[in-house]
Amino acid sequence: MNFTPVGTSGAHEGYCLIKSAEKKLTAKGVPYLDLVLADNGGEISAKLWDYKESPTNQFKKFDFVKVRGTFVPFNDTMQFRVERIRQVLPEDNAMIEDYVPSACLTGDVMLAEVEKVIASFKDEELKTLVSAVIEEYRERILYWPAAKNLHHAVRSGLLMHTLSILRLAAGVCKIYKFVNYDLLCSGAILHDIAKIEEMDVSSTGIASEYTTKGNLLGHLVMGAIAVDRIGRANGVSDETLTLVEHMLISHHGTPEFGAAKLPMFIEAELLSELDLLDARLYEMHQAVDTVEEGAFTPRQWALENRNLYNHGRAGNGGVELINYNEEE
Amino acid sequence: MNFTPVGTSGAHEGYCLIKSAEKKLTAKGVPYLDLVLADNGGEISAKLWDYKESPTNQFKKFDFVKVRGTFVPFNDTMQFRVERIRQVLPEDNAMIEDYVPSACLTGDVMLAEVEKVIASFKDEELKTLVSAVIEEYRERILYWPAAKNLHHAVRSGLLMHTLSILRLAAGVCKIYKFVNYDLLCSGAILHDIAKIEEMDVSSTGIASEYTTKGNLLGHLVMGAIAVDRIGRANGVSDETLTLVEHMLISHHGTPEFGAAKLPMFIEAELLSELDLLDARLYEMHQAVDTVEEGAFTPRQWALENRNLYNHGRAGNGGVELINYNEEE
Amino acid sequence: MNFTPVGTSGAHEGYCLIKSAEKKLTAKGVPYLDLVLADNGGEISAKLWDYKESPTNQFKKFDFVKVRGTFVPFNDTMQFRVERIRQVLPEDNAMIEDYVPSACLTGDVMLAEVEKVIASFKDEELKTLVSAVIEEYRERILYWPAAKNLHHAVRSGLLMHTLSILRLAAGVCKIYKFVNYDLLCSGAILHDIAKIEEMDVSSTGIASEYTTKGNLLGHLVMGAIAVDRIGRANGVSDETLTLVEHMLISHHGTPEFGAAKLPMFIEAELLSELDLLDARLYEMHQAVDTVEEGAFTPRQWALENRNLYNHGRAGNGGVELINYNEEE
Amino acid sequence: MNFTPVGTSGAHEGYCLIKSAEKKLTAKGVPYLDLVLADNGGEISAKLWDYKESPTNQFKKFDFVKVRGTFVPFNDTMQFRVERIRQVLPEDNAMIEDYVPSACLTGDVMLAEVEKVIASFKDEELKTLVSAVIEEYRERILYWPAAKNLHHAVRSGLLMHTLSILRLAAGVCKIYKFVNYDLLCSGAILHDIAKIEEMDVSSTGIASEYTTKGNLLGHLVMGAIAVDRIGRANGVSDETLTLVEHMLISHHGTPEFGAAKLPMFIEAELLSELDLLDARLYEMHQAVDTVEEGAFTPRQWALENRNLYNHGRAGNGGVELINYNEEE
Amino acid sequence: MNFTPVGTSGAHEGYCLIKSAEKKLTAKGVPYLDLVLADNGGEISAKLWDYKESPTNQFKKFDFVKVRGTFVPFNDTMQFRVERIRQVLPEDNAMIEDYVPSACLTGDVMLAEVEKVIASFKDEELKTLVSAVIEEYRERILYWPAAKNLHHAVRSGLLMHTLSILRLAAGVCKIYKFVNYDLLCSGAILHDIAKIEEMDVSSTGIASEYTTKGNLLGHLVMGAIAVDRIGRANGVSDETLTLVEHMLISHHGTPEFGAAKLPMFIEAELLSELDLLDARLYEMHQAVDTVEEGAFTPRQWALENRNLYNHGRAGNGGVELINYNEEE
Amino acid sequence: MNFTPVGTSGAHEGYCLIKSAEKKLTAKGVPYLDLVLADNGGEISAKLWDYKESPTNQFKKFDFVKVRGTFVPFNDTMQFRVERIRQVLPEDNAMIEDYVPSACLTGDVMLAEVEKVIASFKDEELKTLVSAVIEEYRERILYWPAAKNLHHAVRSGLLMHTLSILRLAAGVCKIYKFVNYDLLCSGAILHDIAKIEEMDVSSTGIASEYTTKGNLLGHLVMGAIAVDRIGRANGVSDETLTLVEHMLISHHGTPEFGAAKLPMFIEAELLSELDLLDARLYEMHQAVDTVEEGAFTPRQWALENRNLYNHGRAGNGGVELINYNEEE
Repeated sequence: MNFTPVGTSGAHEGYCLIKSAEKKLTAKGVPYLDLVLADNGGEISAKLWDYKESPTNQFKKFDFVKVRGTFVPFNDTMQFRVERIRQVLPEDNAMIEDYVPSACLTGDVMLAEVEKVIASFKDEELKTLVSAVIEEYRERILYWPAAKNLHHAVRSGLLMHTLSILRLAAGVCKIYKFVNYDLLCSGAILHDIAKIEEMDVSSTGIASEYTTKGNLLGHLVMGAIAVDRIGRANGVSDETLTLVEHMLISHHGTPEFGAAKLPMFIEAELLSELDLLDARLYEMHQAVDTVEEGAFTPRQWALENRNLYNHGRAGNGGVELINYNEEE
Repeated sequence: MNFTPVGTSGAHEGYCLIKSAEKKLTAKGVPYLDLVLADNGGEISAKLWDYKESPTNQFKKFDFVKVRGTFVPFNDTMQFRVERIRQVLPEDNAMIEDYVPSACLTGDVMLAEVEKVIASFKDEELKTLVSAVIEEYRERILYWPAAKNLHHAVRSGLLMHTLSILRLAAGVCKIYKFVNYDLLCSGAILHDIAKIEEMDVSSTGIASEYTTKGNLLGHLVMGAIAVDRIGRANGVSDETLTLVEHMLISHHGTPEFGAAKLPMFIEAELLSELDLLDARLYEMHQAVDTVEEGAFTPRQWALENRNLYNHGRAGNGGVELINYNEEE
Repeated sequence: MNFTPVGTSGAHEGYCLIKSAEKKLTAKGVPYLDLVLADNGGEISAKLWDYKESPTNQFKKFDFVKVRGTFVPFNDTMQFRVERIRQVLPEDNAMIEDYVPSACLTGDVMLAEVEKVIASFKDEELKTLVSAVIEEYRERILYWPAAKNLHHAVRSGLLMHTLSILRLAAGVCKIYKFVNYDLLCSGAILHDIAKIEEMDVSSTGIASEYTTKGNLLGHLVMGAIAVDRIGRANGVSDETLTLVEHMLISHHGTPEFGAAKLPMFIEAELLSELDLLDARLYEMHQAVDTVEEGAFTPRQWALENRNLYNHGRAGNGGVELINYNEEE
Repeated sequence: MNFTPVGTSGAHEGYCLIKSAEKKLTAKGVPYLDLVLADNGGEISAKLWDYKESPTNQFKKFDFVKVRGTFVPFNDTMQFRVERIRQVLPEDNAMIEDYVPSACLTGDVMLAEVEKVIASFKDEELKTLVSAVIEEYRERILYWPAAKNLHHAVRSGLLMHTLSILRLAAGVCKIYKFVNYDLLCSGAILHDIAKIEEMDVSSTGIASEYTTKGNLLGHLVMGAIAVDRIGRANGVSDETLTLVEHMLISHHGTPEFGAAKLPMFIEAELLSELDLLDARLYEMHQAVDTVEEGAFTPRQWALENRNLYNHGRAGNGGVELINYNEEE
Repeated sequence: MNFTPVGTSGAHEGYCLIKSAEKKLTAKGVPYLDLVLADNGGEISAKLWDYKESPTNQFKKFDFVKVRGTFVPFNDTMQFRVERIRQVLPEDNAMIEDYVPSACLTGDVMLAEVEKVIASFKDEELKTLVSAVIEEYRERILYWPAAKNLHHAVRSGLLMHTLSILRLAAGVCKIYKFVNYDLLCSGAILHDIAKIEEMDVSSTGIASEYTTKGNLLGHLVMGAIAVDRIGRANGVSDETLTLVEHMLISHHGTPEFGAAKLPMFIEAELLSELDLLDARLYEMHQAVDTVEEGAFTPRQWALENRNLYNHGRAGNGGVELINYNEEE
Repeated sequence: MNFTPVGTSGAHEGYCLIKSAEKKLTAKGVPYLDLVLADNGGEISAKLWDYKESPTNQFKKFDFVKVRGTFVPFNDTMQFRVERIRQVLPEDNAMIEDYVPSACLTGDVMLAEVEKVIASFKDEELKTLVSAVIEEYRERILYWPAAKNLHHAVRSGLLMHTLSILRLAAGVCKIYKFVNYDLLCSGAILHDIAKIEEMDVSSTGIASEYTTKGNLLGHLVMGAIAVDRIGRANGVSDETLTLVEHMLISHHGTPEFGAAKLPMFIEAELLSELDLLDARLYEMHQAVDTVEEGAFTPRQWALENRNLYNHGRAGNGGVELINYNEEE
């Protein structure tokens, strides 16, 4: 743990993430909190003895907290005996991105790029519709991940995935002049928006569970319902809503992956292909990165059970998933 | 044709359906209408010479009209030379059911039975929701068919199909006490409601085409969107809406048949099974009815290419698809 | 264990099921029986020391026995030291249904209802055939389960499953008058009859293994062979046998589930759909019952890997799988 | 037509097959027979004027007849005016094999080889069983085809197919010593025996239709039922019957091709592979034979839509499907 | 036909494509050529009477010829009576692209762009390999189509398809820095190269048939064999050859589309996705272009039987498949 | 272990296989080798203390070595303390076949039979081609296994599998005279030849891993590439190479098993069927051999999850997989 010593008593303090929190009783019946804390330096089992529960004193999985305490040996390992613990406050200036796996750009920077794309739309209806939907979800979109376990399952992963598709779309539209850029980008920005209601995500940007609604309806249909509601409220025409809703419900490409319809026009097809391309590249890159040059990965369940090969000839050896920096 | 003679000039008149209507020009450039007319007695090619088009003088496929004219021989067959033609009026007291393939009960009778079921609901939210949706589509539901070509593709076929499922549901709930009757019946009544916006249907109750929206979204998703909109407007809770919307988007059972989700609770599963059962029985009965006792039908494309066997031991020899009469 | 104290020596006695029985030797080479006993109160490890094996002194898995003995502490738990043990006798008046998972009606009651249905047949050939088959299997059908692990894997589960289908069939035939009730019910009563030779089942009604014949032929084909043999012996016509045998070999609906033919007439199709419906409802209800209201079950292997949702709105809160009582 | 002139009146006579026969009326209402006749020299339309129907004067499709008559020009082609026609009699010494597509050995020769194999069995039960089944079907097996349209759809094709598998089996058993020769050959001889009740075949050995029983049960299950019946009547043990019946119901290899079970022991697997091998070779050889050296056939529906290549390097250029001669 | 009048005799001349050519005999036994000629103005039936065949006087399907002759009425249409006909010569300066469906850039322009990409490679082995392969096929690659009937089945369609993928690849590599640009582009340039030996193509750039080798091996495996041969001859390392050969044999993505292996590293996956994307866009654009705004296409066999929608909102209304011009 | 005592000091020596070898350090930091040794008598944990690594003193998995040392008790078992260890030398005359699972004939004997077949070819091109390929791989083919885990995963298993197919082919060609024996046998001999470059195999004939090239290209395509290279170098015609290469790339029968093309001529089809037949028989025999008579095996993953039945009626009770002996 990257905790820093405070004073001379051997106490340490630092910021960290709660990976699990359970209220227990000692043999004598005194309540305490049994915690696992994590930061970039690793993770540690921790105890908060004499825990007095109160509304302002609640801690749960994925909370971002500041702790102070002492390291104490326990059996063969070290434990952390918590003396003080509280939620991180804005004035702490602690960046959550430093404590959880995150996209390589911040949510603010990425959302600004997305909004520049919306502002460039020539189709006023689409501009109105997409702006209104983003407005409704603005707060959560900044940090939402794109998945629980699969591609872009990182803080702000949803924006990262959206942005990659927008950049691919720009390249594609330069080559194929008959593609409607505004329509394709509208689909790209909105296609996964209902993931915000499909998963429960803590404010740290880590998904814990699918919601009941998410399980029963799925983000494809939920997205179409949301677009319909917001679009009607903003006077968007039925024709335009139908096109956008079709893109949402068809973007998984085939029924076996949950698409309610096969893509039936060019921008819908493109969206489903670019979505797949970005997701696959993310997952393949992650898998390949875990094995040595010249070796094969274990079978990848989410990639048709393939063993992937690390040929050791990657474009560069960077650690980041996507090197946006040079793009700036 | 069941036309009746009028006067002594050889003229005949009667009610019939327009099966096709095309405006053409004679060799001399004079416009005329080239028609095919049909009633229970057969169909005939007809001409309306010197056709003067006007807003009140429009005729198209599936219009229900009253005609007067004369039978004239043409090549080897007879043609009908139209002298007068107009839309059927309410005061004519002509029953459209007598001229197009129709369900064996009238729309009014069937809708009354459906509404009796709704009135019996103990769950007030479901009663509110289902009533409001029916209210919105009341006029069209009375005569809407359930399909273009497949099961229940007859006038009022949608209500006929709905009612069969409701009756099956009542039987099932008596056997399995853990099934929620109100929820199952809500799903049954609403599951195909969006077929009313998925297909273009003339007032005679015959479907001509799928709408653009129907093609791009499908009645499963369109139904969920409608339920969401109407439910919110009537203050129905999110929990209840989610359950009903899930039943709608999952009622085709498997993704390959268009379900966006597999049924995930008992009433959703039951709805999809009863829907299939009623559709299959309708189609099998129709197919078997076309061949003689002891013979097999040709391969049935919509029934996994089966050849069906007419064993000649049907429950009774009645002509009707479903004999409701004894139920009364 | 629901054993009752006998005398003042601390001895207890009661009825129970043997869940496992193994003959072992003590360190000194003395034979003893190592048992696990179970009743509705739980299960317990038990020892019968100084076991003298003899033809009348054999005990094996799933035997229903009466025991007397003493509870003795062993490590952290209690063991039962068996002093006397014997098979339950008729004069004990102990109901096996109280000791193993059982259908909610007794075999006798259910078989009587089935036979009432047979007696109502108008088709004399079918009445003869079905009666003769039931006669041949009468003794075992009373307690046979419907499966080893899946739906209706309980004592008398085979009759319970059969009866549910018969009741569904009655409802269906009221709605669709063209269905041949006698034929459908004959299929329903005979469809799983060969499960009696497909599985080894102890007299307690619990299946232990598939038989060699069951593995190599399966109950669909075995059923057809049995119907053919019994039908010929009773002078049933070839035409009738062919129809019934077809229903048996097609009742799993599709080849991937073992059907040798797709159902090719209406009653065969109905049988396969009602069979599936009853099996699915049983399994879904069981799965949903194991999780809390508002929660999802783990993936259900036998139900296309679905996570099922307990919406907490079941028809009633009863524990029984099927509440037959109110039917009486 | 290979008819020979008789006398000097221009009359011709010969043996031929009736390919179609229909009773019609002339414009004047006089009955006549409208026929199509065929022999190895081609086929011709023929008329029998003034046809007086009587029990001994019936002619139908696939009858083998002797005709006398005259060739008369009609429009652009020749017709045959029938003067005399009767069924071929044994004393005619006309060989039906010369008039219909036939296996390259006669039924008698092939059945003798099959019976030599049976006689060689060391397993007495199998010898009894297989002999008894052959006995029951002896008359028809001599000329029965193996299919309506596919492999070995020729006179005596069933024996030809059976014999090829027996010869393959002999080779296989020399290589793999652990294979039970008697069991494998029993399966080979009986596997398609129920085709004799699955198809209607005229005495010429050409199949016209599937029987109702054939459609509803199929030759796999029908074969198992017949083996069970005949085996029980001859005291064959249940164990042996189970093995043979399993081979019959599994010999199509996979459920999608109608197998009720996957082959579960080595001889069953071998039977299904050798059956497939012989059928495929027959069909591929026939298809390839219809195109020139260096050319590809059209897509073969029954061979996974393959275009097959005629590489022009066949073992020899013989016309026969299988050159048995050198085997003698 | 865009033929131009010559002289005053009514004669016309022009360049055109032979769509079919057959040598026939007149009723008097005089040989003549029965032709169908085509240019951008349409097509016409033509006769060359008194045809004297000689080695320098051969004409066949897809030849590009200059003709002179006269239009003569025949039944209801016009025929062309050929007086002179010869192959087009370079000095004619007739551009074949004006007479057959062609890519929107010439082969020369496109090949130059491809070679610029090769020249930019940093990996010397790949530069050597790809250059050597292109060198071997240089002449034919200029005009080769990419298919017989499907995507890019136009003159120079192979280069057009290759170039689109290269342009997409450049965009993708800017976004995902870990992709090896040289490897991806090598795969893109070589992936369909063996189509040059898979199909017979006339010098006009229209494919007529698959070659025997093409049918038996396919362009995936043939490409790998060619790369291996040329690579070894140029000293390319086994490691590099293996990577490129893998990309070739896996570029159809899944076995059912002919891939011998699933793509196992990132560039191989990308190649297969970009290949599919370009092919799909081409086919969808072509299909949608044939129907009116607001209409759906018939089912597209090569696109999973989808009906595609023309939403009338294409990026621009241009006729060209891909508007390269603005790219220059 | 079948070690033999040497001298009177209790020392033993013998030949054995190294099943695993790891260099470790004692608590005091002294290097030692931790080994597992195996021969037909079993396997034992062994230690070589004070291990001084040197180029001539390297030991790894699957090495065939001679050891001397002492058995020492360790906990409940015996360990072997190695005193001397070295690779087996030719002059030792130790037969590796006695120490690893091996084919029942030696590589030399089997290769001689294969070469007799080649020598019998009438087609000179095929004789040249097949001889040249065998020549290139002669050394390794003698001991190569046919797989890592599946069928014929034994020393010299590749030749054993090849030889079985050749023997089957001889039988088949006697029955079907139109089959080209030379072509079929060429395919049989070469079909798996590239397994020699697909797997890493120690000189003992046990496969450890797939090579990178093997993973990325597979033995089907690698075989075609090798045949192309060697054939061209030996002047074999393109036509002949195409036929042989097609047989190699299609021999897995269907795409899902890695075939790049479906078999398109008779010998290609036969090769794929005989290949499957031999592989299946090997695997089924092995599986069935592990269970008692009358029992079923566990589900066999590589055989469509079947439970196989040991009917206890095998041709003979021999242990060998294939009893070649009687063939001699």
